[in-house]
Amino acid sequence: MHGLHLIAELSQCHCDLRLLQDAQVLRTLCLAVCAEPGLTPVGEVFHQFGSADQPAGATGAVVLAESHLAVHTWPEMMAVTLDLYVCNFSQDNSVAAHRAFARLLEAFAAKHVVQREIERGGSASTGATHS
Amino acid sequence: MHGLHLIAELSQCHCDLRLLQDAQVLRTLCLAVCAEPGLTPVGEVFHQFGSADQPAGATGAVVLAESHLAVHTWPEMMAVTLDLYVCNFSQDNSVAAHRAFARLLEAFAAKHVVQREIERGGSASTGATHS
Repeated sequence: MHGLHLIAELSQCHCDLRLLQDAQVLRTLCLAVCAEPGLTPVGEVFHQFGSADQPAGATGAVVLAESHLAVHTWPEMMAVTLDLYVCNFSQDNSVAAHRAFARLLEAFAAKHVVQREIERGGSASTGATHS
Repeated sequence: MHGLHLIAELSQCHCDLRLLQDAQVLRTLCLAVCAEPGLTPVGEVFHQFGSADQPAGATGAVVLAESHLAVHTWPEMMAVTLDLYVCNFSQDNSVAAHRAFARLLEAFAAKHVVQREIERGGSASTGATHS
C-alpha cells in the first residue's frame, strides 16, 4: 500500500508539562491536529502511566481512515516519539500528514528533533533530517 | 528514546480472509502475538470498515507499555501493513518484538513482503529486505 510515514524522536521538549504527563491533554491535541487538515479519526486509545497524583507519561494512538497516529511521551526525559502514517489509497494524503505533523512538532517545542520520512509500499527509501 | 521499529508491507496474503476483513478476528490475533513473547498491551482500538454483511477491511492499534503495534488491512487487495515499535527504555525488547512480528508475518502468509527495521533514537538508519 503506497503511503507516507512520518517519524520523529523529540527531546528537550519545552511545551507545557501536562502535554507530556496527562493522557487526556495529549489526546485532545492528537485529535485536533488530525482533524484540522482533514484526516479522519475512526477510533483512539490513550493510556495514562502513573496515577492522577503522579502522572508518569502517556501513550496513545489514533486510528485514521487514512492509517494511524501514535505518540509516546517520557516526561522524566522531556522526550516524545511521533509516528504518523497515511496511506494514499483513494487520494494523496501527504499534504494533510505534513500539516498535522508540523502542528505536533510545534506543540511539543522540542529543542532537538530527529525526523524521517519513509515512502511505504514502494522500494525502501528513507530521508533523515536533524534539527 | 532508543528503540526498534519493525515495518512491513504485505501483499498477496494467503491467510483466512476473515483476518483481513473482520476487525475482531484481527484484534484477537494482535493481542495474542503481543502477549506471547511478553509484550504488555495497555489498551487497544480496532475499527471495522464496511458493515457486518460487507466487511471492507480493518484498522487497529495496540498500545503497549513498550510502545505500539498498528495494523491496517485492504482485503480487496489482499494487502496488509504492519508497524511494531518497541522502546528499549527499561530493558531491551527487541527479541520480543521480532518474535511478535514473525508471528504476524506467519499468520498473514503473504507471498510478497517488504520489511524494514529502523533503529530509533539514535542516528537515522534503516535496513530493507524484500522476500
